[in-house]
Amino acid sequence: MTADIKPGSRRRGASDTPAELPDKESIIGYKLRRAQLLVFQDFIQTFAKMKVRPAEFSVLAMIARTPGLKQTEIAEALGIKRANFVALMDGLESRGLADRRKGDIDRRSHSLHLTPEGERFVRKMIATWNEHENRMIERLGGPQERDQLIALLDRLLAGEPSPDE
Amino acid sequence: MTADIKPGSRRRGASDTPAELPDKESIIGYKLRRAQLLVFQDFIQTFAKMKVRPAEFSVLAMIARTPGLKQTEIAEALGIKRANFVALMDGLESRGLADRRKGDIDRRSHSLHLTPEGERFVRKMIATWNEHENRMIERLGGPQERDQLIALLDRLLAGEPSPDE
Repeated sequence: MTADIKPGSRRRGASDTPAELPDKESIIGYKLRRAQLLVFQDFIQTFAKMKVRPAEFSVLAMIARTPGLKQTEIAEALGIKRANFVALMDGLESRGLADRRKGDIDRRSHSLHLTPEGERFVRKMIATWNEHENRMIERLGGPQERDQLIALLDRLLAGEPSPDE
Repeated sequence: MTADIKPGSRRRGASDTPAELPDKESIIGYKLRRAQLLVFQDFIQTFAKMKVRPAEFSVLAMIARTPGLKQTEIAEALGIKRANFVALMDGLESRGLADRRKGDIDRRSHSLHLTPEGERFVRKMIATWNEHENRMIERLGGPQERDQLIALLDRLLAGEPSPDE
């Protein structure tokens, strides 16, 4: 099965380099990076006044969805490294949006909750986020194209190892 | 467990925050970032021995495709900030892979070329890159899915302003 090499497909000479060079416009990683930067740039501009970075958004949304999750659970699910996550939570705590509470059973593990102010903040954050996301969906062509994009990205990510592993 | 809700406490109804919260799995920016990190991680591992970072790869490939391009032209086309680009070129020059030559007409503008060693290096780099890219295409399901993904990302990027603007 592996000996199925097409004629001429393995010949490389000094003169034929340019012909084999990839066009950046068809390189998956390059295009992903450009698109990710564009979406993040729009996100950051949209949230400039509220001072919410993408990672903070994800953490706040996750705490709001499931109050009481452990720090490690959220960091792992979002692919945020431990040191970065601690700094991020310090910031949210100092802004009075979220707090860490010691667990009843395992007192070393902190569970995360929104403060009442954090809950108000998250409601405003979601409304602002909808503007941004709808703008991105519009660029793509509609919700169907969004679903197609997510499905393709899920294929890339299938079986992804955790970033800390 | 419904008996714990105190009178006047917030109830999780249709109009309440949790119902409106986005699931991270369907957020465009979140998924793009995870997929981009996965592809870059594979790229960096693939190129660990050759010591080529994604931005260096793009610059080398672009100089190889079109020798003599100006620094500003490459930086702009790839969306690399001026300061980062200068540092990157310093690195490629000190490794003997590329050099900056003063233009005949505009002596302040440098045009970029590969050295003979750089040309050999780029041929090896392209062969290594093919392994990585084929692995990503395989994850996606095939070249057709790759084309679909690129087309969707191009929609997001249509009319993208230059990163320096």
